Amino acid sequence: MSLQESLAWRYATKKFDSSKKIDADKLNNLLQTVKLAPSSYGLQHYEIVVVEDAAVRERLKEAAYGQSQLTDASQVIVFAAETKIDEEYVKNYISETAAMRQMDREKLADFEKTILGAISRQSDEQKLNWSHKQAYLALGVLIGAASELGIDNCPMEGYDGGKFDEILGLKEKGLTTSVIVTIGYRAEDDQYGKLAKVRKKDEDLFIRI
Amino acid sequence: MSLQESLAWRYATKKFDSSKKIDADKLNNLLQTVKLAPSSYGLQHYEIVVVEDAAVRERLKEAAYGQSQLTDASQVIVFAAETKIDEEYVKNYISETAAMRQMDREKLADFEKTILGAISRQSDEQKLNWSHKQAYLALGVLIGAASELGIDNCPMEGYDGGKFDEILGLKEKGLTTSVIVTIGYRAEDDQYGKLAKVRKKDEDLFIRI
Repeated sequence: MSLQESLAWRYATKKFDSSKKIDADKLNNLLQTVKLAPSSYGLQHYEIVVVEDAAVRERLKEAAYGQSQLTDASQVIVFAAETKIDEEYVKNYISETAAMRQMDREKLADFEKTILGAISRQSDEQKLNWSHKQAYLALGVLIGAASELGIDNCPMEGYDGGKFDEILGLKEKGLTTSVIVTIGYRAEDDQYGKLAKVRKKDEDLFIRI
Repeated sequence: MSLQESLAWRYATKKFDSSKKIDADKLNNLLQTVKLAPSSYGLQHYEIVVVEDAAVRERLKEAAYGQSQLTDASQVIVFAAETKIDEEYVKNYISETAAMRQMDREKLADFEKTILGAISRQSDEQKLNWSHKQAYLALGVLIGAASELGIDNCPMEGYDGGKFDEILGLKEKGLTTSVIVTIGYRAEDDQYGKLAKVRKKDEDLFIRI
């Protein structure tokens, strides 16, 4: 199926079949695709938490107002934004880039300066919003990739982010929850899968100049 | 190619071949795929501006610090966030949903109340950030879809958003620039296309719980 057909097939899954699990190869395939998502300057301002532990998921469910996807889906994926995009983060990134491209770090001096300039002009709050937006971009890639693999998915924003951070121990890792998505396989009786998809009409969505 | 292979093929195109244009069918295919991107409550808090006009693109280029992609790419796509997510916007959305699903509007009363509650709890700034994040999610879908179609792409954040809004007449439409992406075909001598892709190592990107 094309990505377009895959996205037409998908819907925000409300009820997962809790007996069906995504196998390890498929999950890895999905994660390796998401890893290729682009980000500002390539900084990848987030980490991706894959939660399978049943007890942890029970607690997450409570922090997500009891929504059943948290425990019924095969996995809960939490995009967690980096809260500290500072000089050290950038310097490490430049060093990694030089190593991966087997080039002299000096050749990246202008690029490094550009990034350091960009972060110095932003407040902590602006940088966090910037990180969150990169996480959403990667979420868009994940939704496409999952749907292509026949994996049902439900991106979710209805949860207590502070509690998520606490349960997952994110704060001490310099991270905070951006957005989550539950992945797995739809229950056959999920009525939401049978509803017509609602999207803006072309003339309300697209402007041609 | 799978989405993973397509994303491995793509890179942030710095130099487009200005003689190559994306044909109308392919562009429409791309836009129809992006249209399927999910959003919070399905609200699609953005519009998508497709800019082809040469004179407008010259002005956008100036507002993007002279970056050549603005004029050399086949099209410039601007994701523009809705600045006014209010009761009227939600009511229209619910009416559209009822019409598309051929159901009684009354049956959506709870859903409508939930969305109205969610927007009433947010300041204008929070709602705008929320809109921006949905636009980034759709950008992630666009990047995947373009790459699958063999369309090169370069998401960009380096521009004066205020000037973009002015040039494109977005303010009077209740919109403001979220993020842009240039699409087209890479110039054969774009050296950036030949560099190894830099991504976090699995152990730095993924956390398993």
